[in-house]
Amino acid sequence: MITENQYFDGNVKSLGFQTAEGKATIGIINPGEYEFGTSQKEIMNVIEGQLSALLPNENNWKIYKAGSSFEVKANASFKVKTDIQTAYLCVYK
Amino acid sequence: MITENQYFDGNVKSLGFQTAEGKATIGIINPGEYEFGTSQKEIMNVIEGQLSALLPNENNWKIYKAGSSFEVKANASFKVKTDIQTAYLCVYK
Repeated sequence: MITENQYFDGNVKSLGFQTAEGKATIGIINPGEYEFGTSQKEIMNVIEGQLSALLPNENNWKIYKAGSSFEVKANASFKVKTDIQTAYLCVYK
Repeated sequence: MITENQYFDGNVKSLGFQTAEGKATIGIINPGEYEFGTSQKEIMNVIEGQLSALLPNENNWKIYKAGSSFEVKANASFKVKTDIQTAYLCVYK
């Protein structure tokens, strides 16, 4: 099954699927700033475009270009922002 | 705008967006075999999972693992098949 999800009035859309290691989503983030909460550990991989992220317990935004990734622990919140449509792969651990 | 597309009774779903270089889609392909047609040159990048592809003018299927890509010329048709849900990024040139 391929699940369809959307958040923030359709400014973030994703498709959910299963990998050999567990659940994952691919998605697109429109320009803007968004706050997400995690229930599991997540590894966010930037596929195309670029994200700035403010991770839990960090004071500074950091830029993640296509090909880079960051990890967010379970039960935490983090912010991302972007100026361009950005594609990501999120793997849940 | 993030466009939503689905093909083959929902066994292939994709999200369309814009990159600095032009139009692109990310998508998920369910297990099965599918034939696609191109109207523009396409570069298919396997993000997660694995695809076998039979490209135009080829006689043999070739396997593309996550991290690899293949190119299909405009106005051609190609086949893909997979045993596992597979995520891709398709960039139109």
